[in-house]
Amino acid sequence: MEYDYKISDIITKIDELDAKNIMLQFPEGLKMDAVEIAQQIEENTPDDVNVLIDADACFGACDLADLKVNGHIDLVIHFAHTSLGLKTECPIMFIEASSNAEVKPPILDALEKINPEDNIKTIGVITTTQHIHKLDEMIKLIEDEGYTVKTTPGITTKPGQVLGCNFTSIKNLDVDMIIYVGSGDFHALGVKLFTKKPVLLADPFKGTARDIEEFYDKILRIRFARIIKAENAKTFGIIISSKKGQLRYNLALNLKKLIEEHGFKAQILNMDYISPDRLLPFDLDAYVMTACPRIAIDDSAMYKKPVITPQELEIVLGIRNWDDYMMDEIIIHDGQ
Amino acid sequence: MEYDYKISDIITKIDELDAKNIMLQFPEGLKMDAVEIAQQIEENTPDDVNVLIDADACFGACDLADLKVNGHIDLVIHFAHTSLGLKTECPIMFIEASSNAEVKPPILDALEKINPEDNIKTIGVITTTQHIHKLDEMIKLIEDEGYTVKTTPGITTKPGQVLGCNFTSIKNLDVDMIIYVGSGDFHALGVKLFTKKPVLLADPFKGTARDIEEFYDKILRIRFARIIKAENAKTFGIIISSKKGQLRYNLALNLKKLIEEHGFKAQILNMDYISPDRLLPFDLDAYVMTACPRIAIDDSAMYKKPVITPQELEIVLGIRNWDDYMMDEIIIHDGQ
Repeated sequence: MEYDYKISDIITKIDELDAKNIMLQFPEGLKMDAVEIAQQIEENTPDDVNVLIDADACFGACDLADLKVNGHIDLVIHFAHTSLGLKTECPIMFIEASSNAEVKPPILDALEKINPEDNIKTIGVITTTQHIHKLDEMIKLIEDEGYTVKTTPGITTKPGQVLGCNFTSIKNLDVDMIIYVGSGDFHALGVKLFTKKPVLLADPFKGTARDIEEFYDKILRIRFARIIKAENAKTFGIIISSKKGQLRYNLALNLKKLIEEHGFKAQILNMDYISPDRLLPFDLDAYVMTACPRIAIDDSAMYKKPVITPQELEIVLGIRNWDDYMMDEIIIHDGQ
Repeated sequence: MEYDYKISDIITKIDELDAKNIMLQFPEGLKMDAVEIAQQIEENTPDDVNVLIDADACFGACDLADLKVNGHIDLVIHFAHTSLGLKTECPIMFIEASSNAEVKPPILDALEKINPEDNIKTIGVITTTQHIHKLDEMIKLIEDEGYTVKTTPGITTKPGQVLGCNFTSIKNLDVDMIIYVGSGDFHALGVKLFTKKPVLLADPFKGTARDIEEFYDKILRIRFARIIKAENAKTFGIIISSKKGQLRYNLALNLKKLIEEHGFKAQILNMDYISPDRLLPFDLDAYVMTACPRIAIDDSAMYKKPVITPQELEIVLGIRNWDDYMMDEIIIHDGQ
């Protein structure tokens, strides 16, 4: 197994809490190791300890299994995500996934890609939880080339950290450009949208860096196409998720009022696992996604009807300008 | 809309309970009416009443939405199923779906199909919730042809009622044969398996009756093929559902012990919505389904690995004879 699952820390925690029913939660990419991990834990704990695996999809720390199995669970071991500080029904132990991928090659590649004519003096650095343990190294690499590096903490996030759909650590950074260290276009896109500054994506897994301008333009064109399609809608579905860290119930109620005030119909739909086929029975013209902000962006092509974010709805209703296009992020949710 | 959704009863109930956040739950076949129903309820209730639709799949009264949306729900309106008596976090109003389909043609067709040489004198009658309001008519139709009709109540079921996976109303009926009035093969199959008596399926929607012997033989052949395949398994996944009415946690723990006592490995897996793709990351040889008993029977062909019932596991482990093949049913569950 490539990843350090910290089995002995888990066993110590189970012993400390005298927990009997343990639920293991893995993102899809690590589920193939789940049975072996469960077995290792069982072999090293008393006979009355039951180790379960949650086979449901898990996309982030917004999605915790504390309420599953009707209150039988004493402890959830959640792998590869970092706590969002959600209130839970039982203790959650987060086992972070720190990547060993080298950050030097992609950062040096990023620095080489900076156009000297742009007169870049200050650079903001932001990265995901997987690489944040190398933040000091990232900063030093950039400073060594003569730039001034700035990072700030965000709401519930560390300096330089982007966590799930929370980009607060980058928003008010007074810099000339930003280097995002990570592999996903979604986060780089968010950084670009929230800052409007030049963004280079330094990918530790590929060892190279790329400008995200082209991707940003492509996504914006798709988003504007969806918005235009939604402008013809007379009926809207507002999708909420029952996952506490994704549930924005008050936002959904407010959006419903807003839509109705503009003369359209709105219906709130609850979903646990959000997928296009769950929408097939409903004959609504467009959907507003208040659950995971990535769904509207990443899965856009899978949906027949336009699926837009709350901020995009404001453009549709004419109360936000196209120039003020903003990515959705979850700061206030039901798990707080 | 074909179905009587009893909107005025719902509005009265909302008023009585002073409920503010209402969740509507529909089986897949009625979801296309959901938005209109929600709208009708909203139009006839105060402005601060929020009517939500649960867009998750709903297969029965074992699956109630009382715990969804993080405790915001004051009242669940559950359409087309009958209460299983589950303990819930908020009141549930069940709106039963009574069918208007004629029971006379299929029952007369069934009676014609009885072979005079079989010397049938007593007939048991069993039906689903959809048709149970016509039980007296069914009994009279059969008695008019000179037979003695018997029905008994079951555990939490009415006389002559099969409810979900609960067949207790038919088990100890001392009769020569049984007429099942309904449309689904699954229930007719269960009646056959639990009684071993001749069973005729009288289908009110088709207006005809059919002997289920051939279907029964086909299913048994498939089940025995799955059992033989599972006999080569060294590792078992035990699937539980977090849906209270489908959760048999103690059964799962006991099955795990049983499998381990026989020298094999077992791992409990939790799933909300059970589907074949959720099993793909796990390299286990066979699965025991402790959630909905229909999945192993109805969806068998969708799974690459054998998915067997708890009773079938006993055959696999050599502690139940093939002659004692029994269908799985849920009588004891976590929602009690």
